[in-house]
Amino acid sequence: MKIGILTIGNELTSGRIRDTNSAFIAEAVNRQGWQVSVIMSVGDEYTDIRKGLDYILDAADAAIVTGGLGPTADDITTEAIAKAYGLALYTDEAILKEVRSRLERFRVAWTPNNAKQAMFPEGAVPIYNPTGTAWGFALKRADKLIAVIPGVPREVMRMLPEGVIPLLKEMESGAGTAVVSRTVKLFGLSESKVDETVSGLDLRVEGLSIGFYPRFPENHLVLTVRAPSEEEARKTLSDVESKVEGALRKYIFGHDDDTVEGVVASLLTQKGLTLAVAESCTGGLIMDRITDVPGSSLFLERGYVVYSNKSKTDLLAVPAEVIDRYGAVSEETARLMAEGAVKKAGTDLGIGVTGIAGPTGGTEAKPVGTVYIALADRGRTTCRLFHFRGERRRVKEISAQWALEMLRRYLTGACPHD
Amino acid sequence: MKIGILTIGNELTSGRIRDTNSAFIAEAVNRQGWQVSVIMSVGDEYTDIRKGLDYILDAADAAIVTGGLGPTADDITTEAIAKAYGLALYTDEAILKEVRSRLERFRVAWTPNNAKQAMFPEGAVPIYNPTGTAWGFALKRADKLIAVIPGVPREVMRMLPEGVIPLLKEMESGAGTAVVSRTVKLFGLSESKVDETVSGLDLRVEGLSIGFYPRFPENHLVLTVRAPSEEEARKTLSDVESKVEGALRKYIFGHDDDTVEGVVASLLTQKGLTLAVAESCTGGLIMDRITDVPGSSLFLERGYVVYSNKSKTDLLAVPAEVIDRYGAVSEETARLMAEGAVKKAGTDLGIGVTGIAGPTGGTEAKPVGTVYIALADRGRTTCRLFHFRGERRRVKEISAQWALEMLRRYLTGACPHD
Repeated sequence: MKIGILTIGNELTSGRIRDTNSAFIAEAVNRQGWQVSVIMSVGDEYTDIRKGLDYILDAADAAIVTGGLGPTADDITTEAIAKAYGLALYTDEAILKEVRSRLERFRVAWTPNNAKQAMFPEGAVPIYNPTGTAWGFALKRADKLIAVIPGVPREVMRMLPEGVIPLLKEMESGAGTAVVSRTVKLFGLSESKVDETVSGLDLRVEGLSIGFYPRFPENHLVLTVRAPSEEEARKTLSDVESKVEGALRKYIFGHDDDTVEGVVASLLTQKGLTLAVAESCTGGLIMDRITDVPGSSLFLERGYVVYSNKSKTDLLAVPAEVIDRYGAVSEETARLMAEGAVKKAGTDLGIGVTGIAGPTGGTEAKPVGTVYIALADRGRTTCRLFHFRGERRRVKEISAQWALEMLRRYLTGACPHD
Repeated sequence: MKIGILTIGNELTSGRIRDTNSAFIAEAVNRQGWQVSVIMSVGDEYTDIRKGLDYILDAADAAIVTGGLGPTADDITTEAIAKAYGLALYTDEAILKEVRSRLERFRVAWTPNNAKQAMFPEGAVPIYNPTGTAWGFALKRADKLIAVIPGVPREVMRMLPEGVIPLLKEMESGAGTAVVSRTVKLFGLSESKVDETVSGLDLRVEGLSIGFYPRFPENHLVLTVRAPSEEEARKTLSDVESKVEGALRKYIFGHDDDTVEGVVASLLTQKGLTLAVAESCTGGLIMDRITDVPGSSLFLERGYVVYSNKSKTDLLAVPAEVIDRYGAVSEETARLMAEGAVKKAGTDLGIGVTGIAGPTGGTEAKPVGTVYIALADRGRTTCRLFHFRGERRRVKEISAQWALEMLRRYLTGACPHD
């Protein structure tokens, strides 16, 4: 099935807001094994909306439309679509009541223009909005479908999977095709190596499609299976997943909505272990990511950003002679930072990161991108040397990701101290 | 002048890559005082490219096209455009040589398909690519212009302003219209207040347009002036800017490419002052942002992420009795954290941040979003209490921004200790 996406709003054509809905919808559509034939954004103009919709319905089986459903004067999507097809508008009284009571609950004063949000073109079926006042709607034109939802990304994230995708699935097959999918998240293996490994597997399975999404510094594989029944689809997916996991296990840190910091947080909490982090070149980014996880105060005792040599000595007892002799960016310093974190904070585990993020500070022996990451428990310390490429922010990001990944591997016992 | 944007690539319609070029181009076009009538993405297909281009040239005066200019088999944009208009392709021998020597310099082996990058539809004028091998080109169709550049965002960021915008300017007016623009970056005032203030100014100036770009947690105003000569345009812009700055001075932290951390870094470096940061609820984010600025090691001595009560006492000498009596999230604790940072690190300035980022941990007296930010120098400490709304990450982000803004205001002497 081919789908076209139309996002509507002057804030998009003016560049005022970045259109994140299109990519989100495109990915979701592709996960169902469908294709996106065109993505389009137009302003809040009757003619532009009509022409854009005509273009899409000419090229695709269905249009997913976002934006312009609110109460203000420039929200004209519903009216524009009704006009385009010569349809009258009707008010759904039950929805009008729901909109009113929702506004009351949020203590927003009722104004007559809010009634627009309960109006639909005749023949349209309303689509429930679980997080906002503006309902969406679906309209059939001949054998094609137009699904319209609000443009607020938070609302799209709910209404697309809950309201729109089911309608498209229904439309696709009277006979019924089940689609299941699973995202496998990898880190530590290059794009081309992941690609090569997956290509090398025997995955000639009917109804399977594999999507590859590089999301720096991670790589995501999306496995989608279409089959006559959900049971069959799930079985095939599970077989495929086993093969993929067998080949790439070491690099898989999670699935679907997992983050590496979230996985690390769960493991630390489960095991009742505490952590202290000592960062130099990553400058606080590791801790920023860990503290994004609610409940991280349960295991994160404290952290140090030891930017100066003096602070490494004062706070972590890294001897000045070691720094003088081997350098602030050295395996010796990284190890002593991780060990100092464990000792000073009294935690079970410690991380120490030191490196050269650039753009200056590199030497021939230690060029920009040289980073040492050490992981210490109370008995042993491991340190890895990395040579990263790219500019300052990129070096910080991949260093933080590796620190978290080293923790994850240690905690899963997959590769103790590796 | 009306512009249409066409981005080409299967990686866009599959959702594999998020299209950041469209918003970048749309903003740049609007800054010139032109309008974007439609934004479109299609896959690497002859028919889709031709139909998309037809649609755009019907609606707009010019098309800006990105993507599909590389050496691989699915890069078909040049050929598709030539076919669409029945044009032959020619090879530019000088450009072919340039592409060859660039690949040699990067030690990339020459393969025949690289020659595609020096081929253009007859009548097209090549557009230089300063950062990559694939040149772009501009093609006139009747009174309309098609400008085609590669899809790599880094290359778009150079080729759009350097290669494409000048062509469009030239096309727009034989007489010559000068356009100048300036971005004013604000923080600490709501969207609606900024809007209200600007609307209240007497800015009835010919050729002026004002764009409003909310970029959470900042608000950006883009002032664009069109005039017959650059001199006139600059004079008008400067007058308008003075009025805007007069009304909003307190909230303006920078212009154009400035970031608040960059401004703070410059001020600290200029004044030879050093800084230590003590973060609780922001979890390292303030330091992460500061250390994104190259050279921040000159003034950032160290930082503490004091997540546990014990770490606040151990590292910053916040007395356990104070935490017991007033709470870890309190003005007293925030002040002592900032003062402790100054004393322990021996710096000129210290920041202390403590709050409840959520989603749990809130109480009736101190709900989620309650954040205390303290700034200490060696003589005095100021503390501000904030009540932020939104989820965990949002609270962290706006807290970090306020901490940096308090530093900025202190350092500019605009509002000492306010």
